[in-house]
Amino acid sequence: VRTLAELVRFPSVSAQPAHRQDVGACAAWLVRHLARIGLVRARLVPTPTGGPPVVIADGPRGADAPRVLLYGHYDVQPADPRDGWSDPPFAAVIRGDELRGRGASDDKGQLFAHLAAIESWLATEGRLPVNLRCVFEGEEEIGSPGLLALLRTNPDLFAAEAAIISDMPMVGPDRPALTYAVRGLVGAEVTISRATGELHAGLHGGAVADPVLAACRMAAALRDPDGRITLPEFYARVKAVGPAERAALAQVARLGGGPGSGDDGAGEPSFTALERTTIRPALTITGIAGGSVGADGKAAIARAATLRFDLRLVPDQEPRTIMRSLARHCAAFATPGLRVRFVPGAAAAPLVLSREGAALAAAGRAYTRAFGRAPLWRRSSGTVPVAAALHDRGVTPVLAGFALPDDHIHGPDERLHLPTFFRAIETSLALWEELGAGHAATWQAPPPAEARP
Amino acid sequence: VRTLAELVRFPSVSAQPAHRQDVGACAAWLVRHLARIGLVRARLVPTPTGGPPVVIADGPRGADAPRVLLYGHYDVQPADPRDGWSDPPFAAVIRGDELRGRGASDDKGQLFAHLAAIESWLATEGRLPVNLRCVFEGEEEIGSPGLLALLRTNPDLFAAEAAIISDMPMVGPDRPALTYAVRGLVGAEVTISRATGELHAGLHGGAVADPVLAACRMAAALRDPDGRITLPEFYARVKAVGPAERAALAQVARLGGGPGSGDDGAGEPSFTALERTTIRPALTITGIAGGSVGADGKAAIARAATLRFDLRLVPDQEPRTIMRSLARHCAAFATPGLRVRFVPGAAAAPLVLSREGAALAAAGRAYTRAFGRAPLWRRSSGTVPVAAALHDRGVTPVLAGFALPDDHIHGPDERLHLPTFFRAIETSLALWEELGAGHAATWQAPPPAEARP
Repeated sequence: VRTLAELVRFPSVSAQPAHRQDVGACAAWLVRHLARIGLVRARLVPTPTGGPPVVIADGPRGADAPRVLLYGHYDVQPADPRDGWSDPPFAAVIRGDELRGRGASDDKGQLFAHLAAIESWLATEGRLPVNLRCVFEGEEEIGSPGLLALLRTNPDLFAAEAAIISDMPMVGPDRPALTYAVRGLVGAEVTISRATGELHAGLHGGAVADPVLAACRMAAALRDPDGRITLPEFYARVKAVGPAERAALAQVARLGGGPGSGDDGAGEPSFTALERTTIRPALTITGIAGGSVGADGKAAIARAATLRFDLRLVPDQEPRTIMRSLARHCAAFATPGLRVRFVPGAAAAPLVLSREGAALAAAGRAYTRAFGRAPLWRRSSGTVPVAAALHDRGVTPVLAGFALPDDHIHGPDERLHLPTFFRAIETSLALWEELGAGHAATWQAPPPAEARP
Repeated sequence: VRTLAELVRFPSVSAQPAHRQDVGACAAWLVRHLARIGLVRARLVPTPTGGPPVVIADGPRGADAPRVLLYGHYDVQPADPRDGWSDPPFAAVIRGDELRGRGASDDKGQLFAHLAAIESWLATEGRLPVNLRCVFEGEEEIGSPGLLALLRTNPDLFAAEAAIISDMPMVGPDRPALTYAVRGLVGAEVTISRATGELHAGLHGGAVADPVLAACRMAAALRDPDGRITLPEFYARVKAVGPAERAALAQVARLGGGPGSGDDGAGEPSFTALERTTIRPALTITGIAGGSVGADGKAAIARAATLRFDLRLVPDQEPRTIMRSLARHCAAFATPGLRVRFVPGAAAAPLVLSREGAALAAAGRAYTRAFGRAPLWRRSSGTVPVAAALHDRGVTPVLAGFALPDDHIHGPDERLHLPTFFRAIETSLALWEELGAGHAATWQAPPPAEARP
């Protein structure tokens, strides 16, 4: 826990240029730590997009063992605004049975549970039951641009039978879960601006296009009064989910795997809160800024306003189609007085995985050994861009998270539940054994090319 | 000009608590300056609302002369954002024939032209042709709450036949103008908030009310596609303006008295740009803030969003009725998940003045002497809360401004055109003479009660 706290203390906020050095320092710390616990060739791998490096390290090679990637991310969400935090966000203090801090749960704590288990394997057995490769990126919170580019340019780095991805919640402290679906993502920012600077709202009000009002109209027009997203054909490819799966989701919700405090009755009327966040797409305006309010407020027509969109997609919606559709919607608000600049952001495809196969079965047994209970099958509301990309390359993603629904990830007072963290370590200890045991026959692919003698 | 630059260097931003001391220092400087130029009883008068004091000073008494108030304001608009400024906003540097700086035109330069003329009168003649009282407030840019309260509690302080108010533009550098109408104002801020903190937009998007989107819908619903404000009965009391007055406005617009660069074709189709900003009401969303954009952007559902409204009114719209109507509009967006808090801001009645009377005639002659041309009659797009309040108390407001349409007031690079400033001083020199000359008979009211021996 002390060593994890060191990791949490890095303010490795990938979205904020001011934290560029902190992100780098965090990556360097991870390389040192991976070497210290006995992994080999721990190194920083630059990405084609020039952002934070990917941290890669390998376990000792076992000839007949399956190749398994361990994916995690060392970057974190911004910790602003500070006023919601009981403790400084990067102090990593312990309150009761929780470690508090930005990234304590998402994803440093989950990543570190595996490292603790791996350290234990290497210290006691001197080996790992799998051919392990750790792949820890520093841009997950901004859509994984570097890692996705690296996957395209250096696919050999990621050659494996399975990838363990622990960056999602379970259903509850005693309710482990395997995730078989993630939502896709379309993010974008748009800025609406006038050619001239700020103008006096009294002198000019009535004869000048108002970029703030235009931004409001642009956002408001995206959703109809029933809460449906109005982009043309937006729902055309949304797959209906059958009654059996909806019943299983209802069971997960009853056990605490719903959105919890994140359910205030808003959303599409004919779906439950958990359904609204898993089998249905969603739109959030995650930010808007224009002109001035509060103490800085002045009676001026703003020069510009900026909106930030976050659309979550479900199968079979296509991120590219929807990004184009969103861009078109925004462009339609340009007028002789108003310029519209649309900046596409992160995009990721939604994903539904098979619930069968050796890797998932092994993960299921590992959870059962650590928690005394078989994992539930859950759909994630969130997005894991790397999961779809690995899946496309024939690597089976195993979405085996250890977070809890009330870890406050992305919000103030993010915390890691330490008793769950300890069970996550036990799960990981078992996981490598289960992945390695008896699967040589089914996983006959050779070890990674570059690791061969 | 050097002394005026001293005055402009005070960042006396009334809207920003961080500048409270600067506002106070500016008021103290004014008191010293008023005493230095020979005015008597120069003092700070606290207001009932506890904000910045009103600076008051009197001229030497002349028994048969009319009582005239000289109104101005020493506070300024905020200078944010800084990036539009070619020079630091409070450096008060001279560029060509302009003095640059926040407040250089609005209102320190206009106020100071009178002080230079008064200084000249006292230095050369040892007297003033009127019973002058200077009244300089420090809260004009936030709606004059203190001065308006002082007018109610201490009306004797403002007993006078006329009030010279120089806080508005002329039509152009060679086109002096008297203003006979000002628009009214309804300002307000509204905050829409959820009970819980920020939530992960992926995990919760679709099942949680989005306060940013709700704010956008609240703003967007205030204007219909034709640009008309949708508040119920909003236009019911808007007075139609006849063809003769519209023709005169068109003439003012042709001479450069229209909104200039502040006309981009937006607004109500059946009115000209100058009409849209004078005889028609207007709505501007002067600010919006919620969640985060740009480098701080994160994938979270915001906790709250804040909107700032600026409504300009025309006769016979009633600020109180419209404030209530706006509050009701906003309250209707409350839901089980969203709380709406409406904070009424400044309110001022629209005003149309008679274009006759001794004081206006005197001002007309003063402009003619200084500019070689009779002033045009113009309607102001802006708001001067104190004008209506003085008018209601029997003091004739004389809206005789010296600003120019392209002084960039309230925007970056605000500037004072020095050749116009010098003619403003000449106008003021003539104004006191014209006000005093030959009007003893028509202005027989005694000098202010407290100034009597």
